[in-house]
Amino acid sequence: MVDLEAAGPVLRAQSIELPSWAFGNSGTRFKVFAQAGVPRDPFEKVADAATVHEFTGAAGKVALHIPWDEVDDYGKLAAYAVDHGIQLGTINANAFQDDDYRLGSVANPDPRVRRKALDHLLQCLEVMNATGSRDLKLWFADGTNYPGQDSISARQDRLAEVLSSVYEQLGDDQRLILEYKLFEPAFYSTDVPDWGTALTHCLALGDRAKVCVDTGHHAPGTNIEFIVASLLRLKKLGSFDFNSRFYADDDLIVGAADPFQLFRILFEVRCGGGFSADSEVAFMLDQCHNIEPKIPGEIRSVMNVQEATAKAMAVDMDALGQAQQAGDVLGANGILMDAFDTDVRPMLAALREERGLKADPMAAYAASGYGERIAAERVGGAQAGWGA
Amino acid sequence: MVDLEAAGPVLRAQSIELPSWAFGNSGTRFKVFAQAGVPRDPFEKVADAATVHEFTGAAGKVALHIPWDEVDDYGKLAAYAVDHGIQLGTINANAFQDDDYRLGSVANPDPRVRRKALDHLLQCLEVMNATGSRDLKLWFADGTNYPGQDSISARQDRLAEVLSSVYEQLGDDQRLILEYKLFEPAFYSTDVPDWGTALTHCLALGDRAKVCVDTGHHAPGTNIEFIVASLLRLKKLGSFDFNSRFYADDDLIVGAADPFQLFRILFEVRCGGGFSADSEVAFMLDQCHNIEPKIPGEIRSVMNVQEATAKAMAVDMDALGQAQQAGDVLGANGILMDAFDTDVRPMLAALREERGLKADPMAAYAASGYGERIAAERVGGAQAGWGA
Amino acid sequence: MVDLEAAGPVLRAQSIELPSWAFGNSGTRFKVFAQAGVPRDPFEKVADAATVHEFTGAAGKVALHIPWDEVDDYGKLAAYAVDHGIQLGTINANAFQDDDYRLGSVANPDPRVRRKALDHLLQCLEVMNATGSRDLKLWFADGTNYPGQDSISARQDRLAEVLSSVYEQLGDDQRLILEYKLFEPAFYSTDVPDWGTALTHCLALGDRAKVCVDTGHHAPGTNIEFIVASLLRLKKLGSFDFNSRFYADDDLIVGAADPFQLFRILFEVRCGGGFSADSEVAFMLDQCHNIEPKIPGEIRSVMNVQEATAKAMAVDMDALGQAQQAGDVLGANGILMDAFDTDVRPMLAALREERGLKADPMAAYAASGYGERIAAERVGGAQAGWGA
Amino acid sequence: MVDLEAAGPVLRAQSIELPSWAFGNSGTRFKVFAQAGVPRDPFEKVADAATVHEFTGAAGKVALHIPWDEVDDYGKLAAYAVDHGIQLGTINANAFQDDDYRLGSVANPDPRVRRKALDHLLQCLEVMNATGSRDLKLWFADGTNYPGQDSISARQDRLAEVLSSVYEQLGDDQRLILEYKLFEPAFYSTDVPDWGTALTHCLALGDRAKVCVDTGHHAPGTNIEFIVASLLRLKKLGSFDFNSRFYADDDLIVGAADPFQLFRILFEVRCGGGFSADSEVAFMLDQCHNIEPKIPGEIRSVMNVQEATAKAMAVDMDALGQAQQAGDVLGANGILMDAFDTDVRPMLAALREERGLKADPMAAYAASGYGERIAAERVGGAQAGWGA
Repeated sequence: MVDLEAAGPVLRAQSIELPSWAFGNSGTRFKVFAQAGVPRDPFEKVADAATVHEFTGAAGKVALHIPWDEVDDYGKLAAYAVDHGIQLGTINANAFQDDDYRLGSVANPDPRVRRKALDHLLQCLEVMNATGSRDLKLWFADGTNYPGQDSISARQDRLAEVLSSVYEQLGDDQRLILEYKLFEPAFYSTDVPDWGTALTHCLALGDRAKVCVDTGHHAPGTNIEFIVASLLRLKKLGSFDFNSRFYADDDLIVGAADPFQLFRILFEVRCGGGFSADSEVAFMLDQCHNIEPKIPGEIRSVMNVQEATAKAMAVDMDALGQAQQAGDVLGANGILMDAFDTDVRPMLAALREERGLKADPMAAYAASGYGERIAAERVGGAQAGWGA
Repeated sequence: MVDLEAAGPVLRAQSIELPSWAFGNSGTRFKVFAQAGVPRDPFEKVADAATVHEFTGAAGKVALHIPWDEVDDYGKLAAYAVDHGIQLGTINANAFQDDDYRLGSVANPDPRVRRKALDHLLQCLEVMNATGSRDLKLWFADGTNYPGQDSISARQDRLAEVLSSVYEQLGDDQRLILEYKLFEPAFYSTDVPDWGTALTHCLALGDRAKVCVDTGHHAPGTNIEFIVASLLRLKKLGSFDFNSRFYADDDLIVGAADPFQLFRILFEVRCGGGFSADSEVAFMLDQCHNIEPKIPGEIRSVMNVQEATAKAMAVDMDALGQAQQAGDVLGANGILMDAFDTDVRPMLAALREERGLKADPMAAYAASGYGERIAAERVGGAQAGWGA
Repeated sequence: MVDLEAAGPVLRAQSIELPSWAFGNSGTRFKVFAQAGVPRDPFEKVADAATVHEFTGAAGKVALHIPWDEVDDYGKLAAYAVDHGIQLGTINANAFQDDDYRLGSVANPDPRVRRKALDHLLQCLEVMNATGSRDLKLWFADGTNYPGQDSISARQDRLAEVLSSVYEQLGDDQRLILEYKLFEPAFYSTDVPDWGTALTHCLALGDRAKVCVDTGHHAPGTNIEFIVASLLRLKKLGSFDFNSRFYADDDLIVGAADPFQLFRILFEVRCGGGFSADSEVAFMLDQCHNIEPKIPGEIRSVMNVQEATAKAMAVDMDALGQAQQAGDVLGANGILMDAFDTDVRPMLAALREERGLKADPMAAYAASGYGERIAAERVGGAQAGWGA
Repeated sequence: MVDLEAAGPVLRAQSIELPSWAFGNSGTRFKVFAQAGVPRDPFEKVADAATVHEFTGAAGKVALHIPWDEVDDYGKLAAYAVDHGIQLGTINANAFQDDDYRLGSVANPDPRVRRKALDHLLQCLEVMNATGSRDLKLWFADGTNYPGQDSISARQDRLAEVLSSVYEQLGDDQRLILEYKLFEPAFYSTDVPDWGTALTHCLALGDRAKVCVDTGHHAPGTNIEFIVASLLRLKKLGSFDFNSRFYADDDLIVGAADPFQLFRILFEVRCGGGFSADSEVAFMLDQCHNIEPKIPGEIRSVMNVQEATAKAMAVDMDALGQAQQAGDVLGANGILMDAFDTDVRPMLAALREERGLKADPMAAYAASGYGERIAAERVGGAQAGWGA
């Protein structure tokens, strides 16, 4: 029998970090469809993120992307966030949008370019100090498109050297989070393509270097929850970038493509202690809303993570352990599925009302008029997107 | 024993069509790296395509993309091409870069948008009439990102209706070529995702509707040469869009990722009569040169197709047939591999010299100074890319 | 709002066909683990299938596999089934377990082997006449392991010829169902690898030739529900072979790997009329229970199909159509997800009790002692498996 | 310009280890096709392996599989090998073919089964001591088929404990080689699915624990040469299991599916020092010849590795390094491709004749009459296969 009450404390404490860039325009190489009301600057992004938190109560932080979210005064931006009920979170570096980075950034064969990339990463550390952020998240677009284009191992050495230079400058309470991705934009070799590579670099760096699991960054057929369990076992899971994929790095709403997989991932988080009070695992979204409106897209995403968490917490661990130990394949699977098949939405609605929120965040947001208001007000200026 | 002489007539007649857009800037959703000397208009694209032909002798046509290659006077562009030694070829439609197409073009739930898309396709027919092009190539970005977003079957019906309206307007010597693609930019369902779908639409349309096989548009593990053999058997193979992939639609140089696969594909073309004198199969490139220079990228691509063709023609068909009939697995495979393992480059060099070209097109182009000249001359103006 | 009542008639009428071979031993090339109580002959298989029906009320047919289920008197076997409350269903041919079939059966280069395979298929027609079966299901292991091993197109021609010879002998009320599979046991080319190939053969044969969709037989990333929708639109969907896969043709319990996918597939069945009273779509399981007990494995599978069907029927079609027509991406997706997220188990329990069954078939079977009984009784003799 | 002479020393020293089980019958779960002349015992397997060496001069070792190759007197088997001109090599453990291993071996929830598996591994160490083998290769079929079936992390702990117990018993000159595999026979989670998992266990064990890269054991799209380069950089590459795959673990002849990939892998071996005189990387085949004759299948495989090695050694490293450093994408790729496109077969023929072998091993074997002789002589008895 599932026990939904057990999920309460975890769900009450759960905070899902939103990416500021989810509120800007995004698309594919074929087309970016502009949407009305999209933020023109980081303050408007923060306001939109705060709106997601207002209706869900579970999205208390917003992550920044540098330089997309560069401002003159980060203290002012942080205060603005607090005024709106949220906090600034992870700082995400960007070393892939300068013409100098055509052949890579930290692994570029040209030492001048590597130095430039390192300087950007060190600048991100300064931003972290200004915002009070704990985590520097590093995803590198580095790699090659053609066999022979560059030395695979020399690129690893260059990467290791830059990572080491950054790690040395981390504050005692700061962390370096290394993200891996199988491919795109590099199409032959990627310099950090898998968790094995990210892990070996983090092991070489030290305790404050952790791995980020982006759920969209794996080869077809990869068992992601196995990786999550493994990283938790090795105490090297730093954070999640949640999103959904049917094919490649589709960046759809988390839980939209395979809600059962999301449940299995969060179940391994539970098993590995990632929901415990002293867990340092960060739960972040990293998505694009190419064709759907962005704020409700994020609200729905937060709800999907909540629902999957509730189901993961509803698994009867005692019964499961007994069935596993007894080798009862169908019984153990059935206990897991019992939790997944349960409709946890009423319980989450009750938790929302308990804290003074509407039971249905999607409907409440739609009724709020916020979307119409920003569409009317945010006229003129340059809409935020991946280029700015 | 491979017989390279047999390849001569096919190679002498072989003409690979180049995509005008390969000469413009391209990239991923993360970044488009601009390159010096990139064309600013269709005339400069034609000049670059003609340069590829000048050094290879095997790229006598350039395909246009509407509206990227819109000009006031197509007759003038066609004459310009002829002056430069090449011809205008396939017209490629583009119904994916208008804000109206956020939810699709020909399969959009809104009849106004479908009408707009149809009008664009009919406009492409007019361009064909002006340029004397035989083929209208249709690739649609249509699809959905989320389950339930739209009706899969209703979208098929709408698509069929538009295709029918276009087909009715085709001239007797014109063809409608329908291209399929598994995913991107649509991430849940794509309206023409596979050869089965393209084929059923072409069967419903009539004899002048054919399928285009883009070598980068398949699910992992798909046996592309099987599809090629099947379409040839059904007399429904219209054309190729050649490129390479390691992961998804990487759009790398044809033959760069898996030269053995390219050989196998061209071997099936041979087996199915696609190299015969009366074959109507069009051989086109459809690639991006995101980080490498475009003109030598295209030269190399043409050479790769030539080399794979030479190897495909070098297979000893009599010996192969006997081994196959005898059930000699290793023998038959060995006969095929014997051709693949042969170095056909000297033979191709001789064929080039026979027609007054340099033996090494890459070196000859590098020595020509053309690249430096366009970099110096093409200053100012807006470089061509996917957006224009 | 989901409407579970609408699902009632469909669920009451739903009958899922069981494969006789699911009750025999199965495994991988590495090991077949024997289980106690496994049937020794087709009668015991029928008894086990009837037991699944006894507890679910939704599995009224059992499919046979020839020669695994060869008996002297099929009328007697059919009567035995009826005595146990079920019927014999689809006849599945097997042309892959004779040494003669090393290089294929119906596409073998040797005409003697093709004739042998055809004779087997015609023998299956005789079995059908004896059992009163409607459907002959054909899956061929034919293909090649090495490039060049055989002619892809010649194999298609041979296949077409044999299929035609079989089709000619079909009774007016009988159907030929052609199943496709990407790979295994052939590892380079498979002669019927995808729905496009199966469809083109069925189109060439005639109205009584239909396609079977085995949910485990696709390339990674294939959108199976799209194929289902397409085949229904073309009136060529004959049947399903349900099972689950994480990687290849894993043959796990249907719904175990991706219950959301199963729901989407059955939703397309609903949309395309496959649940209507006059639908001729057959819903079959085709699974292996390599490590779990077979009878409860089948019970669980039937329940999974029922639950996914209930959810598919619970989608509010009016609201969905309106959201789709309005281009409301999140709204339309939300309507679909609302049905999926609903816990339909209480409603199915009620339906079972309505017809005099226990609410929980798994528990009821466990309590029945049937498993212990057959383990005790079925001692000696040769257990059924794939080899016999 | 490629320099084939540089390849000479490496090719002269190259020794490819053959798997004894390649000479026995093998197949898929659908059918094992028996072949005439297949060995009935380990001695006959050794004789067949020696025959491959006789014609290639490059296959001086044969690996054993325990218990398939159990004999009373391993010293006698070793002497028999030496008499036939080869040596016994790697010992491969097998903990997957006992009914006790239904739910796994070293990670089984039952401590009795784990102890049984450990005992088998320790027995393999005794065999190594008797045969003088350096390497114990461990591949475990362990995993689960259904989510929830067992605890992912508990299984890792159990696995680690058994590995540690084995490692403690290794001799100073012996190595433990841990092989990873994505899936099959486990279909949900595999306990050592990827190089990251194998590496972390080997790091925990110590210097004499190394990773085995089986080229057929990866997710679609995995860049295997990247893994090879990474393991060499980390000094953790122990050995290769060479074979080919189009889809899953197809176990086809190495180089048959993607000869360019094999070349790229061996090029990374060269770059990482794996061909140097003091390299301890073992190069092994691990293949099945399901439909082709086994001995010529192995001869062809050895030749394919030789040819790819020759091409890898022919790359002009100085020119490549310069092009890479200059960021010359097409130039660097062209230098690599120049080596791949070269026909190295004449050079290998010359090397064979230099050591008194026939230039064409396939033709020489066919002419030798060995195949006909064993088919005539090996009559009666039980043919070797995976079951024995």
